[in-house]
Amino acid sequence: MSLAVPERLLLGPGPSPVSDRVRAAMAKPLLGHMDPAFLGIVDEVQARLREVFGTKNSLTFPVSGTGSAGMETSLVNFVNPGDDVIVVEQGVFGQRMADAARRLGARVHSIRVPFGEICSREQLEDTLDRVPNVRVVAVVKAETSTGVLQPLDDWAALVHGRGALLLVDTVTALGGLPVEVDRMGFDIAFAGTQKCLGAPPGLSPMTVGEAAWQRLAAREDPVPSWYLDLKAISQYLGGPRAYHHTAPVSMIYALYAALEAIHEEGLEQVWARHRLVAESLWAGLEAMGLQLLVPRTHRLPTVATVAIPAGVDDRRVRGRLLEEHGIEIAGGLGSWAGKAWRIGVMGEGARLEHMMRLLVALRATLAKEGVDRPSGLEALEETYRKGGQG
Amino acid sequence: MSLAVPERLLLGPGPSPVSDRVRAAMAKPLLGHMDPAFLGIVDEVQARLREVFGTKNSLTFPVSGTGSAGMETSLVNFVNPGDDVIVVEQGVFGQRMADAARRLGARVHSIRVPFGEICSREQLEDTLDRVPNVRVVAVVKAETSTGVLQPLDDWAALVHGRGALLLVDTVTALGGLPVEVDRMGFDIAFAGTQKCLGAPPGLSPMTVGEAAWQRLAAREDPVPSWYLDLKAISQYLGGPRAYHHTAPVSMIYALYAALEAIHEEGLEQVWARHRLVAESLWAGLEAMGLQLLVPRTHRLPTVATVAIPAGVDDRRVRGRLLEEHGIEIAGGLGSWAGKAWRIGVMGEGARLEHMMRLLVALRATLAKEGVDRPSGLEALEETYRKGGQG
Repeated sequence: MSLAVPERLLLGPGPSPVSDRVRAAMAKPLLGHMDPAFLGIVDEVQARLREVFGTKNSLTFPVSGTGSAGMETSLVNFVNPGDDVIVVEQGVFGQRMADAARRLGARVHSIRVPFGEICSREQLEDTLDRVPNVRVVAVVKAETSTGVLQPLDDWAALVHGRGALLLVDTVTALGGLPVEVDRMGFDIAFAGTQKCLGAPPGLSPMTVGEAAWQRLAAREDPVPSWYLDLKAISQYLGGPRAYHHTAPVSMIYALYAALEAIHEEGLEQVWARHRLVAESLWAGLEAMGLQLLVPRTHRLPTVATVAIPAGVDDRRVRGRLLEEHGIEIAGGLGSWAGKAWRIGVMGEGARLEHMMRLLVALRATLAKEGVDRPSGLEALEETYRKGGQG
Repeated sequence: MSLAVPERLLLGPGPSPVSDRVRAAMAKPLLGHMDPAFLGIVDEVQARLREVFGTKNSLTFPVSGTGSAGMETSLVNFVNPGDDVIVVEQGVFGQRMADAARRLGARVHSIRVPFGEICSREQLEDTLDRVPNVRVVAVVKAETSTGVLQPLDDWAALVHGRGALLLVDTVTALGGLPVEVDRMGFDIAFAGTQKCLGAPPGLSPMTVGEAAWQRLAAREDPVPSWYLDLKAISQYLGGPRAYHHTAPVSMIYALYAALEAIHEEGLEQVWARHRLVAESLWAGLEAMGLQLLVPRTHRLPTVATVAIPAGVDDRRVRGRLLEEHGIEIAGGLGSWAGKAWRIGVMGEGARLEHMMRLLVALRATLAKEGVDRPSGLEALEETYRKGGQG
């Protein structure tokens, strides 16, 4: 039974499609993880990750696991049992950070925000006032489960003023919109390769600033996770180049090629492409009479959440999109399960022609569900044609 | 700067070379991690992993991280703070398990064995007598740092007699020699893809037996690691197919193709090939007057450890092999650093022609170090020719 992989257009909230160039890089012969040639490739990946994160942080690298491994690395190194930790929960991935921090023995103080809404600066300040010894404030910048973009201006000043570290989940942001770790004052940030960076899942880029590093350096007890111990990993990345664990060589090749493509296109152009394609998708969905669940003021460009029209069967529609049109979108998570579809505008998926293909397929599929939608798509198609290929 | 990957013959202790077929599989377009087509591929990988592990264990799957992630998964799910854990330390990877268990708050009772030696049944029994409430006994079957194959016959009966679980590191064994989890009574075993399985690094196959699973099911406190929580991961692998983390899709493709190749060649034939090529390597090294550090009685076929001759510069020789001949071998670890070379006979590396190429290159390199070696290689080359391509 040879490996049979059907053709799919991946327009869910990740993994996003991967270019031929990235796939070709992944297929290159292996190098050893201690080979000087491979260490040079790791150096380049680190340098390019600093560009997309917007940071000069020396400790910027891909964790050897998927996005959740980056989350866990961010918590296990900086949260001790008994520590007070504030976690903003505006969706499933905020809830996940709270769960993970609790497992590590932290006293978690959650700021719970309804799905689709953001956490206000006042809510943060109130919570900071109630938790005087807070050590870490954790927040998701781009909530993949709700399609919300959380504003984080001035958060660093507030959080640092209390002596805490600001930990930011940038999984569905990195590469697709400005993250700007240094300018925003994030102490720790992590992401995934399978979203806006255009590489397959398997690595979690992360970056650690000086204040966080100093806290880790002062930590006396060993980090409970051997695999995700940043002090040990940093000995492989720099200085002594000491063997820690075997790096996932082929995944690093893929990330190298993906970052190279972003560098060549230009980071700001890549952000602009994500934005343009997202706006076009929104216009197309609205032209079909569908409702976006998040207001424009804090709508995430990289994942759109769409209300499932009354009387429409969620699973049947997604099944038909997959089987009849070869297009993957996702259902809602948590309290939005069965109520929302999630459409990704990420990496190589963030192309106008892909969105047009989805809109046409979605209209045809909804018609089979007995839903007649205004046919604004022809006009839109014209607009797309003028706008070029995104 | 496009990705430049020099040609290397990887004959260190992993990663081992990867076939064109595996590389082509890795380069296939992505599927989503919830796509029924991908879940079917995961099912196949699980079935094939059961074959190589020699088990019927339902929970047999690749952990989303390199070999050390499998080690950590094996410990974090089954070791609670305060638990008594016996760890056999005959090398760096036994030491690593002891370190990782200690970080989780276990009381670790080490059986320390000098590098190059094995742990006797008597040592195990003595230690079991001294640690009446032992919960887990952890041991490395194939020590990558020393080249020792630890006999484990009857261990399960002894360990189970005390109510403990037997946890076995099979990283440098799986696919290259019999592991036979069910017949040997191992409760938990983990491995790596980049050794004898012939896939790139990035996944850690593991298997969990019924007794271990029952203990986990009865565990009331949440597992401290969110990412490596087996109860949660098992919900994705079977039954509800609940999303946990995004699987490393391309790595799973690679493992699929590697396991398929093993299945086609025949598992016993693959073991026999590893054995034959190892014997030939040993003969070649001895023909050059080099000394193997581990006696034949417990010598591991998959990693040979060779004494570095007096007056020979370890790093210079390895550097020349890499730069002048494109061959990677590794130095010693721990107390054998500077004293030993480690040569892998694993996966696609376990081919007679690769060993011949290494022996010829090593002889030429040692001659540059002023070491004249008996030239028994011509006779050996003749033997190889008769023996075919391995």
